[in-house]
Amino acid sequence: MHLATKGFDVLGWSIEDEVVTSINEYNKHPRFHSHIQLSSVFRATNDLSEVLTRDLLVLAVPSSAISEVFPKLVSRRSPLVVSAIKGLDSKTLLTPLQALKHFGIEHSGAAVLSGPSFARDVVRGLPCGLVSASSNESVARSIADIFSNDAMKVYISTDPLGVELGGIVKNVVALAAGVCDGLELGDSARAGLITRGLAEMIRLARAMGAQLETLAGLSGLGDLVMTATCDTSRNRTVGLELGRGKKLPDILRELGSVAEGVETTPLVLELARKFNVEMPISQS
Amino acid sequence: MHLATKGFDVLGWSIEDEVVTSINEYNKHPRFHSHIQLSSVFRATNDLSEVLTRDLLVLAVPSSAISEVFPKLVSRRSPLVVSAIKGLDSKTLLTPLQALKHFGIEHSGAAVLSGPSFARDVVRGLPCGLVSASSNESVARSIADIFSNDAMKVYISTDPLGVELGGIVKNVVALAAGVCDGLELGDSARAGLITRGLAEMIRLARAMGAQLETLAGLSGLGDLVMTATCDTSRNRTVGLELGRGKKLPDILRELGSVAEGVETTPLVLELARKFNVEMPISQS
Repeated sequence: MHLATKGFDVLGWSIEDEVVTSINEYNKHPRFHSHIQLSSVFRATNDLSEVLTRDLLVLAVPSSAISEVFPKLVSRRSPLVVSAIKGLDSKTLLTPLQALKHFGIEHSGAAVLSGPSFARDVVRGLPCGLVSASSNESVARSIADIFSNDAMKVYISTDPLGVELGGIVKNVVALAAGVCDGLELGDSARAGLITRGLAEMIRLARAMGAQLETLAGLSGLGDLVMTATCDTSRNRTVGLELGRGKKLPDILRELGSVAEGVETTPLVLELARKFNVEMPISQS
Repeated sequence: MHLATKGFDVLGWSIEDEVVTSINEYNKHPRFHSHIQLSSVFRATNDLSEVLTRDLLVLAVPSSAISEVFPKLVSRRSPLVVSAIKGLDSKTLLTPLQALKHFGIEHSGAAVLSGPSFARDVVRGLPCGLVSASSNESVARSIADIFSNDAMKVYISTDPLGVELGGIVKNVVALAAGVCDGLELGDSARAGLITRGLAEMIRLARAMGAQLETLAGLSGLGDLVMTATCDTSRNRTVGLELGRGKKLPDILRELGSVAEGVETTPLVLELARKFNVEMPISQS
């Protein structure tokens, strides 16, 4: 929707016919932000091959779909690929950009776009700051140029792993912050937990080869602050209900949408073991 | 109250007779957290010379009182002094520990105690994490030992300037975060502002000789997250009302208590000029 507003010809892909039909016929998503009238420029299809001919491919599938969808991207003709996925592939523990490489998809043109940006805020044109990161700086800059406008300021980074890990591991700490609030431990405890949570995110990211500065930036600290303190965050909501004593399966059924942190937590702990990093908050 | 609960013989000092009487006769503060029953071990006096004989001096006056109160501390016999003041001296732009030195008060035993800890949470015995910092590590450790208990975990630092600046400059960013929310710019914008605000806190602190790691810790990031996101924070409240269009004098009259950020903002901007650091958020 953000790109359609900027005048790009946007084609969405979904496996759900209901979503495709609703967008094409009513310019609305049937479930998420369904009160928002989408631009008529924004069309949708259920045929993956159609989107693979586009100039830019925005990957925004749930991380659980990486192993199923990524191999199908081999035939893409898009010179630019940008990942907005905030989770790990559960089988390989790879980040989305690492998985692109793993699945044999040429990725000299791949970047990650991350940072504090609730869909609700972006679709309303409210201001936000993001980071576009790629090992290829000119690719990071191209993506930043494509997404930037008066409301959205996109910074550049050449540490894609740090930016990916910031967006992924923050969901685990946000869950913990929710538990902290569900137990009514107070604002001081939550602020302490967020700080020590960022410290363990930084420990893991550095052990994996990313930079401290990246994690202290928008995708890392910024995204963590938003996700861990705003009641509209799905990951935080799951933690809140856990802290109040509700059972996880019941919470997820009522939520009805993806809370990446739930699937990410055991995977992050596996990474912590693999890289020999202590992560007491993620552990507990 | 925290120290009295730990069994220390605590004597408070106030220039307000009403406060002294209320604490000694009713074990309650007449205005702040006045529903809380204080320990009967906690006594108060309006005679400064009485507190100057104590083993530990906790400095918790508003920063506007530094130039008036500090010179009177010369006669103290306390081997340990810890500052809990989160503001600058307006005339000299000095931090409280720098001011102790400036006013000729021997400070080999001086430390700063800071970090996310609303009085409301501490007095209820809720968990929090703080930092005790001194150029003399054994002093930092003594203060940490004195304050630590099951609820309060106190970490050690040998970067007192970084810890002081974290607690001081965060009030300016918290004000800005309040303005952002008062203008209803959204959660994404606030998270971006907090992140870029921390970045400018770090720039100033490093230019003054403090460490990045300190500012990314509890007094810095942690305190900023708490102050900038919790509606019970006085600095945030002032920003919120400013963002909604209310005038500053009216806001301060209704608040009725100290919002250090209001006095700190112009002083931080003076420091930024002096050390040639760009601080766009504090500026605006």
